[in-house]
Amino acid sequence: MVFDPTVSARMGARIVARCDELGTLTEEPGVLTRTFLTPMHKSANTLVGGWMREAGMEVSTDPIGNLVGRYPGTKPDSPIVMIGSHLDTVRNAGRYDGMMGVISGIEAVESLSRAKRRLPFTIEVVGFGDEEGVRFDSALIGSRAIAGTLPSTVMQSRDATGVTVADALAAFGLDPKRVNEAVRHRGDLLAYLEVHIEQGPVLERMGLELGVVTAICGGTRRRFHVTGEAGHAGTVPMDGRHDALVGAAEAVLAAETVGRAHGVVATVGRIAAEPGATNVIPGGATFTLDLRAEKDTVRAEALADLDRRLAEIAKRRGLTISAETFHDAPAAPCAPHLQALFEGAIQSLGLKGTRLPSGAGHDGMAMVSIAPIGMLFVRCKAGISHNPAEAVDAGDVGLGASALIAALETLAEAAKPAV
Amino acid sequence: MVFDPTVSARMGARIVARCDELGTLTEEPGVLTRTFLTPMHKSANTLVGGWMREAGMEVSTDPIGNLVGRYPGTKPDSPIVMIGSHLDTVRNAGRYDGMMGVISGIEAVESLSRAKRRLPFTIEVVGFGDEEGVRFDSALIGSRAIAGTLPSTVMQSRDATGVTVADALAAFGLDPKRVNEAVRHRGDLLAYLEVHIEQGPVLERMGLELGVVTAICGGTRRRFHVTGEAGHAGTVPMDGRHDALVGAAEAVLAAETVGRAHGVVATVGRIAAEPGATNVIPGGATFTLDLRAEKDTVRAEALADLDRRLAEIAKRRGLTISAETFHDAPAAPCAPHLQALFEGAIQSLGLKGTRLPSGAGHDGMAMVSIAPIGMLFVRCKAGISHNPAEAVDAGDVGLGASALIAALETLAEAAKPAV
Repeated sequence: MVFDPTVSARMGARIVARCDELGTLTEEPGVLTRTFLTPMHKSANTLVGGWMREAGMEVSTDPIGNLVGRYPGTKPDSPIVMIGSHLDTVRNAGRYDGMMGVISGIEAVESLSRAKRRLPFTIEVVGFGDEEGVRFDSALIGSRAIAGTLPSTVMQSRDATGVTVADALAAFGLDPKRVNEAVRHRGDLLAYLEVHIEQGPVLERMGLELGVVTAICGGTRRRFHVTGEAGHAGTVPMDGRHDALVGAAEAVLAAETVGRAHGVVATVGRIAAEPGATNVIPGGATFTLDLRAEKDTVRAEALADLDRRLAEIAKRRGLTISAETFHDAPAAPCAPHLQALFEGAIQSLGLKGTRLPSGAGHDGMAMVSIAPIGMLFVRCKAGISHNPAEAVDAGDVGLGASALIAALETLAEAAKPAV
Repeated sequence: MVFDPTVSARMGARIVARCDELGTLTEEPGVLTRTFLTPMHKSANTLVGGWMREAGMEVSTDPIGNLVGRYPGTKPDSPIVMIGSHLDTVRNAGRYDGMMGVISGIEAVESLSRAKRRLPFTIEVVGFGDEEGVRFDSALIGSRAIAGTLPSTVMQSRDATGVTVADALAAFGLDPKRVNEAVRHRGDLLAYLEVHIEQGPVLERMGLELGVVTAICGGTRRRFHVTGEAGHAGTVPMDGRHDALVGAAEAVLAAETVGRAHGVVATVGRIAAEPGATNVIPGGATFTLDLRAEKDTVRAEALADLDRRLAEIAKRRGLTISAETFHDAPAAPCAPHLQALFEGAIQSLGLKGTRLPSGAGHDGMAMVSIAPIGMLFVRCKAGISHNPAEAVDAGDVGLGASALIAALETLAEAAKPAV
């Protein structure tokens, strides 16, 4: 298919309109909040399932509550290309994070279906039921169930009202004992593709509509505690102090330095001084670190560098600094051939793309354990996400869907049996 | 009188024993908390008033609830030397802050009374009812009432249960309309003298028992707010950030640098990042500053230097930093002749003293507006105060009382009419 800007624009407008319609399905009036296995999740599956059917797909809900639309390939045993993203949201969310990718997948299938074309692979468009992890404090439940990496203990996780995942599945009309049947295996999928808003400012700053994701960054989250010596703010001279907060302040700056030096992102998002009185020298201080990197080796080097700097600060100031890692996720690299695929697709639209890592987490982090993954980013406004102010340009969204279609075409060429 | 180490040690032991006894009068079982105009305040006045009477003083409660013991001088119109400190405590207090000074004054009078000596000035030992400001969120009520600097609005200040100062005075058996009668005027007092634990670590570090206070430091307290740009901790590259907390961290270090450079004490005791989530770049940050200096000019210079540094940080990082001053108290310099008096007194005991500022606030901050003030510091353990672990060496306390007596003797020599 040759790129048609008019068609692209029409697709973009329809995807955005559908995201906006889907955004009305919320648990909290006035804001968008839609969490896993709730009645609103069911309503979203019904609405999006209807669009899938209109696009010519067979629609089902898998054993974990993911919505699956299937567009069969030329043969019954065709391999599968899965196009996915999530239908759940954070609290007080934007309307495009996740949903835009699912609906773009539907749009791609519809363009094939309208042309009555089958490809040498089956396309499955999946709307994952849980990526954000809002309801059960355990993220990526939908994609991990498919990847077979969901620990069985998750079934007994409880929401704020005490309902377990197992109870919630039953209430959703699913059999918690059959969750295993959602699992796919390595070899089942030719590729996992995802279109997503960038959720960051890089494309906008570069003046680019689309970007190819190199990897979903791995991340480490740590909680630090600095112990010094409390004292009277008026009576202890500067030279005799072991001020824990001043040490923590140096650590915050060290995290920034390390982030820059290693080409990673390092953020201190929370900090507190103890006892926390205006006229008391802090005897303690706590702060968090969120450090993410495209490569796990680079992340480890950056963390080791930070550790060295913190040890030096502690020694020089007569403080002790302890750390507890409460989150550690490896990077999910995108397959080089799928990066090249999306890059070629972007070029085929006459656009200049770029490659960039994804600092935010995505379902691909789960899917990478069973399939090569590829991700396409669509520019969003001011990098704002997880916020009602999340915004996209419908033209950019149409270009994203167009690039996805072009990528599928290229994959189809490659998958064609040799003549 | 010649210094007698045995007498000094006996005085120290008795002062400490009385402080410990007084420390049992508490509003909160298990810890020491005794606030202004409470039944426990009345009990303290009764107990200490009894010691004053035993020491040969006429005892009364002044119109604001201060306990006043009077030891008349040689003539009915003798000028007055006031020896004061406070009988109230912070919550969960130590037993020596304030009380030790009042009881040392009683001990000094008792030594005169036992020797049946009158001095050419009347001695008043005052136990101020409120220095700490715990009950009514307004400190130095006792000494400010005497100095005539208590704003009339204080009468309507309410405690946590809604009781006003006026109500509390009435419940204490005092007439709120007669508070003005507590006022003394410039010229009424020859000197205001106070013995107090250091509440800091300087004397202990120098290996000295006693020190002469040069001034009660002036202090400024400010609340700062840094405004930057919030963002996703994973998706915003380090170079595009306006992280408010990193700016605040630089400000914390700037406060330390300024404290050192200007010979003042500067403390950031509270800090918070907004929104305060591990995975969000802080768009805002707040922190407090407590800066104290012996000289008001030096304090102003230090604050101006900090302002310049903060402006530079804000400019370089694309942040805005605003400040609100919520406390500003001028320094209360000790009279040079009273510094010399206490220094001579320390030397007369065969000790080496030192001069040092008081970073903590004291009743002298109020008294300085009507009288020359002089303060003597007694070493305390590890600089700990406002804490049940507050501790003194009884020998040091005895030396403090001995130095006070020696100072009174010298004053008496100087005040004797020329022959």
